[in-house]
Amino acid sequence: MRPKLGGVLETALYVEDVEASARFYQELFGFERIEGDHRLVALSVLGRQVLLLIRKGSSAGPHQSSGGVIPGSDSSGTSHLTFKIDASDFDAWEKWLGENGVAIESKVPWERGGRSLYFRDPDNHLLELATPGTWAIY
Amino acid sequence: MRPKLGGVLETALYVEDVEASARFYQELFGFERIEGDHRLVALSVLGRQVLLLIRKGSSAGPHQSSGGVIPGSDSSGTSHLTFKIDASDFDAWEKWLGENGVAIESKVPWERGGRSLYFRDPDNHLLELATPGTWAIY
Repeated sequence: MRPKLGGVLETALYVEDVEASARFYQELFGFERIEGDHRLVALSVLGRQVLLLIRKGSSAGPHQSSGGVIPGSDSSGTSHLTFKIDASDFDAWEKWLGENGVAIESKVPWERGGRSLYFRDPDNHLLELATPGTWAIY
Repeated sequence: MRPKLGGVLETALYVEDVEASARFYQELFGFERIEGDHRLVALSVLGRQVLLLIRKGSSAGPHQSSGGVIPGSDSSGTSHLTFKIDASDFDAWEKWLGENGVAIESKVPWERGGRSLYFRDPDNHLLELATPGTWAIY
């Protein structure tokens, strides 16, 4: 029988400059830095999830931690990540992105009534803010 | 003032074969398929998040949806994703992975008392199951 699972904990983005990326996510979204070195910065997504910013090329091979071996991963190109926002905060997010010099690449209304804002992080990763009514489960 | 944010909604993995990947995540984790075509499959992570499996090369450019343009993203290599599990389910997950023919690449105990299991998906993306005591916030 399949054991229980509790949802997403960590999601990773592979970036050129971990400090520049960390500043972007900290300032724009208010994520707090919980760990970090020259290779990897871990940000708390409001105490719910962890966003890992990993320097490209730095983690392709296994990494020895105090407890054991962390197997490698390394990715290039642009990935995608979406955060939940309330419908009542949609306009405020649009304004906040503008005030922070972040260009909105697209605004999409969905059939279920939700709306999305699309924009880019410093590595051109595609970020999205979505209100409820985007998916059958959200 | 920075508007409110509600945590991670969507996280994406870029894969060779969306159907093979979807089967892997559905069978191993019990994620339900909520949308899908030859290009992209969306799985519900227990109604909490959405895992997007995107065929490599299929979404590099903008995509016209009924509501508007979804900007492109495309990634190669191996990414990383972690799911939360209870400490009391650690052994059951180890057994379940074995029963499903998934090789465990590493088992790591953390200083805070948590433990992680590392293994691979069909595209060699690095998956992790982590119990509480892994991060300051978890």
